[in-house]
Amino acid sequence: MDHKILETARELIDEVGYPALTIDQVAARAGVGKAAIYRRYASKAEMAFIATVHGQWPPPQPDTGSLHGDLLELARTYHTLLAAPASRHVAPALMSELAVNPELVTRFQDNFQAAELAGLAEIIQRAVARGELARPVDPAIAHLLLIGSHVAALYLFHQHVDDTTVTSLATATTAGLIALADQE
Amino acid sequence: MDHKILETARELIDEVGYPALTIDQVAARAGVGKAAIYRRYASKAEMAFIATVHGQWPPPQPDTGSLHGDLLELARTYHTLLAAPASRHVAPALMSELAVNPELVTRFQDNFQAAELAGLAEIIQRAVARGELARPVDPAIAHLLLIGSHVAALYLFHQHVDDTTVTSLATATTAGLIALADQE
Repeated sequence: MDHKILETARELIDEVGYPALTIDQVAARAGVGKAAIYRRYASKAEMAFIATVHGQWPPPQPDTGSLHGDLLELARTYHTLLAAPASRHVAPALMSELAVNPELVTRFQDNFQAAELAGLAEIIQRAVARGELARPVDPAIAHLLLIGSHVAALYLFHQHVDDTTVTSLATATTAGLIALADQE
Repeated sequence: MDHKILETARELIDEVGYPALTIDQVAARAGVGKAAIYRRYASKAEMAFIATVHGQWPPPQPDTGSLHGDLLELARTYHTLLAAPASRHVAPALMSELAVNPELVTRFQDNFQAAELAGLAEIIQRAVARGELARPVDPAIAHLLLIGSHVAALYLFHQHVDDTTVTSLATATTAGLIALADQE
């Protein structure tokens, strides 16, 4: 039933857009009760986020042979997922809801953030093994720099982000982690 | 009248919180018509953002004598403004509204982002003059790294950000800009 709900939500977001989407529409087309949807998701924003962004997560773990290559691949994946038309509505709506729903924050941290931090910890560990980083650094810092810069560009400043920008953000993050490892 | 509206909005946000705030309450207490408020601000979110975050902007321009010092001071200012209780509701609400209101995006870029980029361009120019940066780098990249990491930490992951984290983000951003200047 999860699969059917999320697939229907994705279809309807493509057809009517996120702002016009309602839980009623999803329930009717998926042939499930509204209660079944609300048992799984706190709100339209959480359902839509899982259908459009989180459903594609965790992204395939990059393993390119260099720290810069891994972070660039990750930055490109973040960009692809976060710049998709549905995400541009769904992710800001999710952030508004996180501000007022602490249980949603916990679910989001456990199901989404934790997997990404684990992936980044592996990337960092491999960079240490190759001698690119003097020591392991906090994956949370890498995560904030990489994903935060995309969140600000897309959802706060609504600026065009081309591959040159994505590459610069990955290059700066790489150099930043090397500096933190040297100093720690 | 602007001043009275914004002061009243700030008072009411302190008293009832952003979620419960209404334009009606602000109009009644400030002794102005609702139309006067809507002529100035597209919505509750824009009014509240200008009252709580943007009203404190632009922050005093840091000029500490080093790139790291300037970026650290800026990062601390971002943290103070964005982590304030009102901002935690108002900024995500503003992002939701930016997603559906292109005119608000333009106003936000012209009134808010432009001033910050000009400030960062000065910081970068001084770092070039001191020989800390080989060349001027794009202030937008510095901006996305510094403010984006705070936006993600506070509004997406709801993680505690202490001064060690703020310092690490400033250190990483400094090293990132140096690397970009070397490569450009």
